[in-house]
Amino acid sequence: MTNEKRLATYRILDAQSLPALLADLAHVRALLGNRPEDWQIREVGDGNLNLVFIVEGRDGSVCVKQALPYVRAAGPSWPMSPKRAYFENSYYTAVAPFVSALIPKIHHFDAELYCTVMERLSPHIILRQGLIAGRRYNKVARDVGEYIARACFFTSDLARPFEHKLAGFALFAANTPLIRITVDLVFTDPYVDSMRNRHTSPQLDEIVSRLRCDAPLKAAVAGFGQKFLSESQALIHGDLHTGSVMVTENDSRVIDPEFTFYGPIGFDLGAFFGNLLLNWYSQPGHATADNDRVAYQEWILQQAKIFWETFRTCFLALWDENAKGDAFPAVMFSSPSDTVALQSARSAFVDSLFADMLGFGACKMIRRILGFAHVSDLECIQDAAARADCETGALTMAHLLLTSPKQFHSVEDVIEAVPRARLQAHHVYYR
Amino acid sequence: MTNEKRLATYRILDAQSLPALLADLAHVRALLGNRPEDWQIREVGDGNLNLVFIVEGRDGSVCVKQALPYVRAAGPSWPMSPKRAYFENSYYTAVAPFVSALIPKIHHFDAELYCTVMERLSPHIILRQGLIAGRRYNKVARDVGEYIARACFFTSDLARPFEHKLAGFALFAANTPLIRITVDLVFTDPYVDSMRNRHTSPQLDEIVSRLRCDAPLKAAVAGFGQKFLSESQALIHGDLHTGSVMVTENDSRVIDPEFTFYGPIGFDLGAFFGNLLLNWYSQPGHATADNDRVAYQEWILQQAKIFWETFRTCFLALWDENAKGDAFPAVMFSSPSDTVALQSARSAFVDSLFADMLGFGACKMIRRILGFAHVSDLECIQDAAARADCETGALTMAHLLLTSPKQFHSVEDVIEAVPRARLQAHHVYYR
Repeated sequence: MTNEKRLATYRILDAQSLPALLADLAHVRALLGNRPEDWQIREVGDGNLNLVFIVEGRDGSVCVKQALPYVRAAGPSWPMSPKRAYFENSYYTAVAPFVSALIPKIHHFDAELYCTVMERLSPHIILRQGLIAGRRYNKVARDVGEYIARACFFTSDLARPFEHKLAGFALFAANTPLIRITVDLVFTDPYVDSMRNRHTSPQLDEIVSRLRCDAPLKAAVAGFGQKFLSESQALIHGDLHTGSVMVTENDSRVIDPEFTFYGPIGFDLGAFFGNLLLNWYSQPGHATADNDRVAYQEWILQQAKIFWETFRTCFLALWDENAKGDAFPAVMFSSPSDTVALQSARSAFVDSLFADMLGFGACKMIRRILGFAHVSDLECIQDAAARADCETGALTMAHLLLTSPKQFHSVEDVIEAVPRARLQAHHVYYR
Repeated sequence: MTNEKRLATYRILDAQSLPALLADLAHVRALLGNRPEDWQIREVGDGNLNLVFIVEGRDGSVCVKQALPYVRAAGPSWPMSPKRAYFENSYYTAVAPFVSALIPKIHHFDAELYCTVMERLSPHIILRQGLIAGRRYNKVARDVGEYIARACFFTSDLARPFEHKLAGFALFAANTPLIRITVDLVFTDPYVDSMRNRHTSPQLDEIVSRLRCDAPLKAAVAGFGQKFLSESQALIHGDLHTGSVMVTENDSRVIDPEFTFYGPIGFDLGAFFGNLLLNWYSQPGHATADNDRVAYQEWILQQAKIFWETFRTCFLALWDENAKGDAFPAVMFSSPSDTVALQSARSAFVDSLFADMLGFGACKMIRRILGFAHVSDLECIQDAAARADCETGALTMAHLLLTSPKQFHSVEDVIEAVPRARLQAHHVYYR
């Protein structure tokens, strides 16, 4: 089908038009219970980009996600190709063989309406909302660590002949509008005077103006921006923050991979890790007389540690068992006498992913406080002074991670620095 | 046109069929002089892959290069898509705006016959042949350094919005058969028992068997192999050794970019640098009673230094004047107070290219002595013992570059180590 035909067929769905579409899909119709007139439909999208409908029938329910031709959070004045839904679906298809239990089941993808009919996750909630509420999900850090290890390892040159990656790269290279968002909103805008930026004002005004003159910080950010564009290590999710994970106590699912492309593994690691830290810094803003959230903050840091350690262990185990790719080809390391050097090279590679996680994570923290799209962990703190306090702590930590990377050899080093950065924020940040 | 149609139309050209093809191209016909019956045609290809014809008419001459559907050096038993000619032409088209004076003029590309009609370079000879003959070309090191700086800088994210690179990457990602050759022949085969390998035997037998057990060396090579596949810094030539440069004393042209794709800049740098070193080590094999080639060896090392320094200076100057890309965006570094940190980041990036040049260069040196395709610098040394002596020196140096990279901070460090590696070869190499 030509692009013209597709665009001609595209229309924005609503509660009135959706049943006819779903009724034509025999398996979806059967799943919902065969009476479209009984289906209950509500639009629940609260993200920045898309429509999301929950459709409930007598026998079951589904979730329908449609890409709008503009950025929802900005409105039609910021146009955005709905083709991102195609890349999202292609990502799910590519990683499903390796992480099927950790993504929603896809029932149908409509390439004309750029809409996906998928498993409705219930009683799951968005992890970010759970963390703001101070709830503990003891499986999710492990699950997401394993998810990134498996999705990234198996789409890398370590696992497969390089021809797979090049073919996939060529496909996902067309996802430019979404990659453009990341390049602009994460790696550029927060460091310049842009209409799209906003921050807690006037409390952070001074920090913002100093940050925009902080050349070593900006050079570090630009280095990670360059890495983002030129290290095609694996098929990455591209936006794997705590708002892209849905959880119950026993189940975790990764959603919303529309920013996907072949990039650095550390970008996915950093998105999740950095958002855990953002949540940590937001906790004083959620404290009540009954609950000072101090114990919960400790739990958050444990999760950050578990997340990284699970990733590391899982990635190395996969490499040990599935070295079928062209990078570090198994045939070159087949003798027992090769083991020590090989393990050392593997460790060094995983160490480089750790450093990337911290750098990318710090870039993400900054952009969520000073850029276009903020996070509800901080946004829902009503008192501006209290919010600014939390944000200053997070910015201090991000600054440390970017300008003193050699202080952080291990995840323990990071965990020790997190509370220290908060205490030092007012004294140290941009003296 | 469909692939089927193209394949149906493809035929291997020869001196009989070529005039009719060229006579149909008005500008080529005019250039040669309008009498096809007078054209003199000879096939002169001596590379590993293609047919190359020189066509001489009364008024001028052209060169015609046709990709064969197999590896010429191996014969029809090693099939190879002729589509590489399409990528070669696409590369010339992509870099011509930046390096037009350093590539041949392309008169015509025939997408059905995978053949290119281009400027006949005369009285140019292949640089490698000149170096073997002990001739000095005082412009070429500067020219090739500038060539790589310009071709790579302007196709990188430093110079252009990233969308250009992604579109180009998607196009060149289909050049997989040629990339497969590099992955196998450069980064894997020399380190394993492969039918395609050969070496000076029995003189190098011991070194070969030790090299295949040298785990730290293999891990270093594998690290560069991984980098080759996952660092898409710029559109690279992919095979820029001294056999891919044609020279006179006053003119240099880069040819044969069929291995092109988006990869690490250090791979092009290393190809040229490593082949200069190979030539240095080959010189005792070309010494005569009249000419011990010692002064010529010094000239070669000067060229290696000039090559790197020209690249470095030119790349940094281009970056200073043309920072119009998404990596290190100019808008983030617009204040004078940003200058120091920005220059330092740029230096660090160019330093990383230096390290890559040495590592990739060393991989290239090894594969040209122990792998499938050798170089005439060494091959034309008839006496096997003398040849093995030269080769052992080169292997010793390559080993040092790969296993002790921290010894080499500057190009001077490399130049000092080159003669030392030769002297030490018999004592030090694999004690």
